[in-house]
Amino acid sequence: MPVKAVVFDAYGTLYDPQSVATVTDRAYPGYGEMITQVWRIKQLEYTWLRSLMQKYEDFESITSASLRYTLKLLGLPLIDSVFTSILEKYRWLDPYPEAHDALEGLAGHDLAILSNGSPNMLNELVRNTGFDRQINHVISVDPMRIYKPSPLAYALIETRLGVQPSEVMFVSSNPFDACGAKAFGLKVAWIDRVPSDAMVEACKRSDRIAPVTMFRAVRQQMDELGFDPDHRISSLTGLADLLQSELLG
Amino acid sequence: MPVKAVVFDAYGTLYDPQSVATVTDRAYPGYGEMITQVWRIKQLEYTWLRSLMQKYEDFESITSASLRYTLKLLGLPLIDSVFTSILEKYRWLDPYPEAHDALEGLAGHDLAILSNGSPNMLNELVRNTGFDRQINHVISVDPMRIYKPSPLAYALIETRLGVQPSEVMFVSSNPFDACGAKAFGLKVAWIDRVPSDAMVEACKRSDRIAPVTMFRAVRQQMDELGFDPDHRISSLTGLADLLQSELLG
Repeated sequence: MPVKAVVFDAYGTLYDPQSVATVTDRAYPGYGEMITQVWRIKQLEYTWLRSLMQKYEDFESITSASLRYTLKLLGLPLIDSVFTSILEKYRWLDPYPEAHDALEGLAGHDLAILSNGSPNMLNELVRNTGFDRQINHVISVDPMRIYKPSPLAYALIETRLGVQPSEVMFVSSNPFDACGAKAFGLKVAWIDRVPSDAMVEACKRSDRIAPVTMFRAVRQQMDELGFDPDHRISSLTGLADLLQSELLG
Repeated sequence: MPVKAVVFDAYGTLYDPQSVATVTDRAYPGYGEMITQVWRIKQLEYTWLRSLMQKYEDFESITSASLRYTLKLLGLPLIDSVFTSILEKYRWLDPYPEAHDALEGLAGHDLAILSNGSPNMLNELVRNTGFDRQINHVISVDPMRIYKPSPLAYALIETRLGVQPSEVMFVSSNPFDACGAKAFGLKVAWIDRVPSDAMVEACKRSDRIAPVTMFRAVRQQMDELGFDPDHRISSLTGLADLLQSELLG
């Protein structure tokens, strides 16, 4: 089947959640790194747990709750104005360096985002970064009140774009998301941002490791879920060629 | 409502998953600590992800897949006989030091386990540790083909024991499990094995931390999910007094 739409995950794929590090470290000097990693780990956990508990709250609320957890864990004071300014960064996350050009290189394709983000924070982020000029559809899981990797989330692509799952190339750097999309029946390209040999090296004989290494160790290696993505590329730059080869395929 | 049944989580509550450390370090000297922590983190993640993907596999399969993920991450060879011997430890996990006496102290109560564990591995563990003499019912989530904290998992208590949720004291040291049980409507006692001040101290100004600290940081502090447990005690030993005070309530 030809690819009729290219659908991107947002956080971790087009936008770098690690770019909160500037604000977390400014707010709590010396703790920026731990806050950044624990916050992101818990944020995703809470999407899964609330989905499973059937106690949905939107991604804005979950992003806030996971930051609250993190500050409490570290014994850091929660100051409202500081807290709000850290959260605000989610509306201004840095795109990955290659994201803009890679999207430009896909001109002519129907481009969309399917994200856990709540509609407000997601639309603002896309607008703030100017990606609304290249992305045609911004789809939030919010109306389904359940998060990825639930099939109900991926089903929104067909509902909103009117394309069959097999006509969609789904692009994510989050292994759980790539596996979930594949299990649902989408074609999947996984952006493998942390090569496994670098990972092996970083974890070598380490009785103490950097928090970011722990994050990468648990969240950026391909999962053993039995739903391997169709393609593995090292950055968004490889997408144009990949879609070309699918076309010739 | 009086407490008619005391229901325990197994892994992390009665049995110490950290006790795999002896076998992981023997199998892969110098890597035992990383294997132990990453394995446990991914094991729980896979229960949530597979539940949400509607792609259930039993806990034995998930325990095996998460160990496979961990060895691959660390670039360690998977040798069948070694792999099997590590997994085998899940049938012989060490009970927490106080578990046996605490259960003895609850004689007269109807005691049960509700666990993610698949029936075989769970029944063997309970028998191997002699806890089948104190525990009257061993309930696995397996027939529901979904994991905690799904309400379908907690609903098995009423189905199997014939007691109302409000008549159950559910005991878990896993924050997600305590919150899930509370959201479902059980009375909940959370075993807080890692005091928050110790946690704050361990995470202080740390650009590098021990993997076990990272595990505790993300999985052993009370979650910000809005479903706080009714009781917080530091070990299973406090249960007898707590049940007494509930009775006098």
